[in-house]
Amino acid sequence: MKCIVAEERIDYDGSQIGSLWAYTKFGVQDDSIVCFRGRCNIPISHMIDLEDRIHGERIESPDMIHFIVEHFDMPSLRLAYTRQRLLACIAGEALKDMGFIVSRSGDDLFFKGQKLSISIASTGAASSKIHFGINVECEDYMSLNKMGLKDPDGLMRQIGERYAAEVEDIEEDMRKSRPLEVFR
Amino acid sequence: MKCIVAEERIDYDGSQIGSLWAYTKFGVQDDSIVCFRGRCNIPISHMIDLEDRIHGERIESPDMIHFIVEHFDMPSLRLAYTRQRLLACIAGEALKDMGFIVSRSGDDLFFKGQKLSISIASTGAASSKIHFGINVECEDYMSLNKMGLKDPDGLMRQIGERYAAEVEDIEEDMRKSRPLEVFR
Amino acid sequence: MKCIVAEERIDYDGSQIGSLWAYTKFGVQDDSIVCFRGRCNIPISHMIDLEDRIHGERIESPDMIHFIVEHFDMPSLRLAYTRQRLLACIAGEALKDMGFIVSRSGDDLFFKGQKLSISIASTGAASSKIHFGINVECEDYMSLNKMGLKDPDGLMRQIGERYAAEVEDIEEDMRKSRPLEVFR
Amino acid sequence: MKCIVAEERIDYDGSQIGSLWAYTKFGVQDDSIVCFRGRCNIPISHMIDLEDRIHGERIESPDMIHFIVEHFDMPSLRLAYTRQRLLACIAGEALKDMGFIVSRSGDDLFFKGQKLSISIASTGAASSKIHFGINVECEDYMSLNKMGLKDPDGLMRQIGERYAAEVEDIEEDMRKSRPLEVFR
Amino acid sequence: MKCIVAEERIDYDGSQIGSLWAYTKFGVQDDSIVCFRGRCNIPISHMIDLEDRIHGERIESPDMIHFIVEHFDMPSLRLAYTRQRLLACIAGEALKDMGFIVSRSGDDLFFKGQKLSISIASTGAASSKIHFGINVECEDYMSLNKMGLKDPDGLMRQIGERYAAEVEDIEEDMRKSRPLEVFR
Amino acid sequence: MKCIVAEERIDYDGSQIGSLWAYTKFGVQDDSIVCFRGRCNIPISHMIDLEDRIHGERIESPDMIHFIVEHFDMPSLRLAYTRQRLLACIAGEALKDMGFIVSRSGDDLFFKGQKLSISIASTGAASSKIHFGINVECEDYMSLNKMGLKDPDGLMRQIGERYAAEVEDIEEDMRKSRPLEVFR
Repeated sequence: MKCIVAEERIDYDGSQIGSLWAYTKFGVQDDSIVCFRGRCNIPISHMIDLEDRIHGERIESPDMIHFIVEHFDMPSLRLAYTRQRLLACIAGEALKDMGFIVSRSGDDLFFKGQKLSISIASTGAASSKIHFGINVECEDYMSLNKMGLKDPDGLMRQIGERYAAEVEDIEEDMRKSRPLEVFR
Repeated sequence: MKCIVAEERIDYDGSQIGSLWAYTKFGVQDDSIVCFRGRCNIPISHMIDLEDRIHGERIESPDMIHFIVEHFDMPSLRLAYTRQRLLACIAGEALKDMGFIVSRSGDDLFFKGQKLSISIASTGAASSKIHFGINVECEDYMSLNKMGLKDPDGLMRQIGERYAAEVEDIEEDMRKSRPLEVFR
Repeated sequence: MKCIVAEERIDYDGSQIGSLWAYTKFGVQDDSIVCFRGRCNIPISHMIDLEDRIHGERIESPDMIHFIVEHFDMPSLRLAYTRQRLLACIAGEALKDMGFIVSRSGDDLFFKGQKLSISIASTGAASSKIHFGINVECEDYMSLNKMGLKDPDGLMRQIGERYAAEVEDIEEDMRKSRPLEVFR
Repeated sequence: MKCIVAEERIDYDGSQIGSLWAYTKFGVQDDSIVCFRGRCNIPISHMIDLEDRIHGERIESPDMIHFIVEHFDMPSLRLAYTRQRLLACIAGEALKDMGFIVSRSGDDLFFKGQKLSISIASTGAASSKIHFGINVECEDYMSLNKMGLKDPDGLMRQIGERYAAEVEDIEEDMRKSRPLEVFR
Repeated sequence: MKCIVAEERIDYDGSQIGSLWAYTKFGVQDDSIVCFRGRCNIPISHMIDLEDRIHGERIESPDMIHFIVEHFDMPSLRLAYTRQRLLACIAGEALKDMGFIVSRSGDDLFFKGQKLSISIASTGAASSKIHFGINVECEDYMSLNKMGLKDPDGLMRQIGERYAAEVEDIEEDMRKSRPLEVFR
Repeated sequence: MKCIVAEERIDYDGSQIGSLWAYTKFGVQDDSIVCFRGRCNIPISHMIDLEDRIHGERIESPDMIHFIVEHFDMPSLRLAYTRQRLLACIAGEALKDMGFIVSRSGDDLFFKGQKLSISIASTGAASSKIHFGINVECEDYMSLNKMGLKDPDGLMRQIGERYAAEVEDIEEDMRKSRPLEVFR
């Protein structure tokens, strides 16, 4: 699992959720979490979440920190969404360690009752992906700026590195447990 | 996903990690999280974690809150351990909402740098399981008593219900996302 | 597993076999069988069955009862087709209980040697689907009208409810069986 | 998929549900349905169905026709039970074609409201298996003798051959269907 | 597993890697390896290998022997690529038996240090596929003509038949091995 | 994927094929190939291959090079046996590069028509494993000594390192291929 922190700004327009984006952009041939900062503006045609498409919801922010996760190990939608929840928890823990206690509901983070993040997960035949974004600036919702967090880039790096470490740690734990028996 | 809160004390001796324990004990024919309170004392022969077996580690407590999770949807060790991490996060969030800020490292919770919990996950051909336990009393490690938490049964119920709700929520999210495309 | 009986007529044109149709049409976020009545007219471009596409077969009826099944649990083509056969059997059983003895060959039902139904199954990365349709009226093939069955809507509801109950029942049976041993 | 009709009587004692029984007994290295006739007497220790074990149910008959199915393609409990239901349907269809209209509920066949059959399915790491048995003689339950069916061996062969043909047919249908699209 | 040796020349343009090509071209409803001879010229839009697309690599030859493998048993990219390596090994063994010692690196064959072959594997929701091609004539790379091999059609048939036999042999071996135990 | 070359002699008695042997012996928490040299003597009770058990075949050699492969990524018997074949090919290629042309049939290597190796693969709920052994000395069968190969330890290391590199290479190739389309 590679954690890549992009050096340049990348505006998120939904195309980054496509399979193999990390390979075509960074040449990475490993499971990866790519962290970058940029605008968020997703045209309807790129929306993965049909709920948003149906309601014509605008997802917009002039500045967010973004995470694009891609796993090739098992193209399972169930595992993809379980990992998405874990990523949301990890983001909450990183914020807590910087002094900001947020709450989580499903894949959303909230601060003082206001929504701070957006997320989606999906799978294709070859890989599964997660997008998770946290507002740095945002007029209508909560943002890191409103919270008074000074170092969004530091937070971004923390979250990316912790998620990659967590996945590695899980892979190690898988390799020391006996299969189950039935006691009866 | 059923959340079952046992009415009686149950001492955890490692047999509860076996496949189908919830069925033989409670007759439940659903994925489940069973919550109970009792002693913890695991004989070597029941240890799933080979690391503990090799090091002959004693896992003991006179009083813990226990969670036994069983999923039949996919017997994947990778998903089992990802769910275990999510359960540890949920436990941390429930503690936070009761006013106790703990930290998490992998499947362990810590308070003031001292370990508060134990956990293991595994899989068989038919189902996968997680055991997660939090010390209510413990001489050598951190415990809810030492932290001053007055209502371990309330915490136990919170964690069980939140995990079950989280799994249901994931199942719903899986059913509204388009499969991935490749943009290129 | 939800059984949804549509209140309005829906003409089947092959688009209903697409992933997530039940979600976009009915907002359902569960595995589902949707039952509806309407015309059947599938343009070549929507045909899933390549045999039909190659032979340019017209699939047409002015009035059918239709079933659209979607499962998100395992995107397996093998399971999808096994479930399709089971659905065909269940349709035959429901007809038998209304006094009509039909015969089944693969995914087709026959009455007095004439074909009464059409069906297809397929899978995508996120879900698998089945379409099963029974002629209410049909010039060239057998139909419920020709058979003298008076209540196609009642039959439709029977089949949908029985399939949903069967799937629930299977899920329960999965949760009471010990894994296999090797006796030798 | 091989259909094997045993030439000798074999008494079913539950050991035949073990993985690889068909290989050790008949040398078959294919998915298989083995059909045989014999007594049924299952000691508690061989019971796969925990419901029966818990209730100490005796499963006994002096003469049954038995089917042992083993599939190596996918060790999925969900597929195993779906196939079990299909086998029960096929048994019902074969009886119908010999003039006996039975009803089915889950994995059980009934004639005049009395239970005629027993069944179990399970999976191991390498293969999944089904046992299905129909009483030829039985004091307490329905039997083919009581129904007046004269040729249990002919029925046995019919069911075995039809199941094997059905599985082959499913495998062929899997190889002519386009994957799903999302129309929206 | 069917081995089909095409009687006519077929020019490879990348469309043959699409799912179900063997069915639409030859009507085969089994896992298959199709062997044919013809030109190789793949437009960018048909390229599966993103590395080639990114580098705009031209893959061209006026005459190759081609193999198109399609498996429907498990849509796993990992298994597809493992099978691709095995096919490359088998091609090397067939060449060795005709007196030509080649070396293999990943999915490529080399003779006297020059590349002799091209290959790609991929998976969709319903099946996984491999293309493997060996130059009969080629200006820029090694070819069977340059090596002095007189009978490319014989080699083609050998490789196709050996691959199909190998897969059958693997399926048989799968059906005689006990599942693993844990000795400790 | 770790390649571990044991420093001490290890006699193979079949217990090494058990799940998690590499972890309990070497503490490795990764997929691994462990290479070691030692006697081979497998008691009937440890035999995985039922063919050998049935025929009571003695598998014995005073000196072999052994390979124990364990993968945790997918507990699939099909993938395990495909990897076993690939390992046999790699062993043949390493021998060829040391000047010895062997032939392969399934999982067996032959030199001058005499069998040189033994192998088995299997899977459990948590991992799949391969044992592959090549005779260094052997009275009844071919051996590296009889062939005149001077450096069995060098060969052993070559095979182990090549297998590990091959698996890594496959993992990388999986991460640059577009999923399949259907062209029609």
